[in-house]
Amino acid sequence: MVRPFVKMHGCGNDYIYFDCLREPLPNPEALSVRLSERHFGIGGDGIVLICPSHTADARMRMFNLDGSEGKMCGNAIRCVGKYLYESGAVPREEMSIETLSGIRRLHLATAGGEVSSVRVDMGRAELAAAHIPVDAAGFGVEPCEPVIGRPLQVGGREFAVTCVSMGNPHCVVFLEEDVDALDLARLGPLFEFHPLFPDRINTEFCNPLPGGEFKMRVWERGSGETLACGTGACASAVAACLTGRAEWGHDIKIRLRGGELTIHCTDEAVYMTGGATTVFKGEVEL
Amino acid sequence: MVRPFVKMHGCGNDYIYFDCLREPLPNPEALSVRLSERHFGIGGDGIVLICPSHTADARMRMFNLDGSEGKMCGNAIRCVGKYLYESGAVPREEMSIETLSGIRRLHLATAGGEVSSVRVDMGRAELAAAHIPVDAAGFGVEPCEPVIGRPLQVGGREFAVTCVSMGNPHCVVFLEEDVDALDLARLGPLFEFHPLFPDRINTEFCNPLPGGEFKMRVWERGSGETLACGTGACASAVAACLTGRAEWGHDIKIRLRGGELTIHCTDEAVYMTGGATTVFKGEVEL
Repeated sequence: MVRPFVKMHGCGNDYIYFDCLREPLPNPEALSVRLSERHFGIGGDGIVLICPSHTADARMRMFNLDGSEGKMCGNAIRCVGKYLYESGAVPREEMSIETLSGIRRLHLATAGGEVSSVRVDMGRAELAAAHIPVDAAGFGVEPCEPVIGRPLQVGGREFAVTCVSMGNPHCVVFLEEDVDALDLARLGPLFEFHPLFPDRINTEFCNPLPGGEFKMRVWERGSGETLACGTGACASAVAACLTGRAEWGHDIKIRLRGGELTIHCTDEAVYMTGGATTVFKGEVEL
Repeated sequence: MVRPFVKMHGCGNDYIYFDCLREPLPNPEALSVRLSERHFGIGGDGIVLICPSHTADARMRMFNLDGSEGKMCGNAIRCVGKYLYESGAVPREEMSIETLSGIRRLHLATAGGEVSSVRVDMGRAELAAAHIPVDAAGFGVEPCEPVIGRPLQVGGREFAVTCVSMGNPHCVVFLEEDVDALDLARLGPLFEFHPLFPDRINTEFCNPLPGGEFKMRVWERGSGETLACGTGACASAVAACLTGRAEWGHDIKIRLRGGELTIHCTDEAVYMTGGATTVFKGEVEL
């Protein structure tokens, strides 16, 4: 069976997208393992299925390199919005997408029938230590309190860290030294497996830049350093507001290795805006 | 301009193939850099152009990740043969392909219109030290003599090495210890930049296996460890014959990380037989 697909990326986070609105894709777990392989397969960070939904305009299912199903990906959902709009399946600039983390609302910026950028309502940031989760006592706070600029000993050095959940746990570190010079391959795992993070942790290393922007590198739990992490960019912007490095209710630009995201934080929700790129279309024998 | 392409691999050595028999591809150097990128582009080890030829059935041009033009690739030329046969452009099981290393003759094994494997005449192995090139005096031989099982000091250890040129220079090392356990990231560059190799060197680390087969890992100059190297497999088979580990005129199976190749060595030529796989077809905006 030959099946069409589209290869798309958001900030370099690249997936193989299958339109399953009319026809399901059998055994997506095994397909993700086979097709994501970069020398023998199509190559990608995983596969994404665009499916019908009873509660939203469409449903996104994503599968990782190892075949496991992911809950939500901010870079992928922008590409899903672009696909739904440009294919005519959802011909509106406002749409809702069902994910395993709940329904996400998208606003698309369009011109001439093409989507130039997508804003995603990423939901509310969770700050209570116990809910992130982080070890509250270890940070010297109550379980219901936030961890903001608290000292953490990692690899023989003390870092001031701020912890945020965007559905997944993040530890944000602001540094004066250039994050491009950091040895993330050494430092990342020391954060990821630190005993104060019971579910492990994603860590963002950020430099404040002139103009209220931030340069960010990210170490994702289970994946290592990646080109971009949408929830990590959101967590970093929230941490910047919490520590007085940026302002609530203003646009905050985050420069990741794979591209730029603009984050807007309020008490109610965090909005992430970024591009989505179609690289090529193809068809593959399944 | 939207242009069709085919993604193919031979032993995991994957290229993006463009049919240029009727229409040329402008600026292949820049396209190879852009399209080979694995997160933002199509992804591959480079691009291959299948072009008309005045002296052979077709001409293969290959471009590397950095945009430089390669001379010849044994894994790619098998895919070119498969494409030419299955597309109907050259409907014969014997064909000739022009490359920057000269014309190569192919014999295709086919069934039901599909190519199952391809045998390539890789030309004669060059053994004279000065022509490989290696520093003859450093190995204690005359410039016109071969280097067979000679001692070489690398990283505080002595290796017995055999040197062969298959159009590019190779240093073959047979080891009793499992090559899978070798630290190639450390050892490879020590061979590559050893002062006895004036043009640097590709190094093959080989284990003799029961049944006259060999397991091989390869460190390619300029690329590091790769899944497969066609000329490296040929050089290893020649070295096995030269050192009495295999026989001239018999099939020698080489197991690489990305697949298997069968090599047949005579005084006149080295023949390499292996598979070629079409992964998917696509079209991309140039």
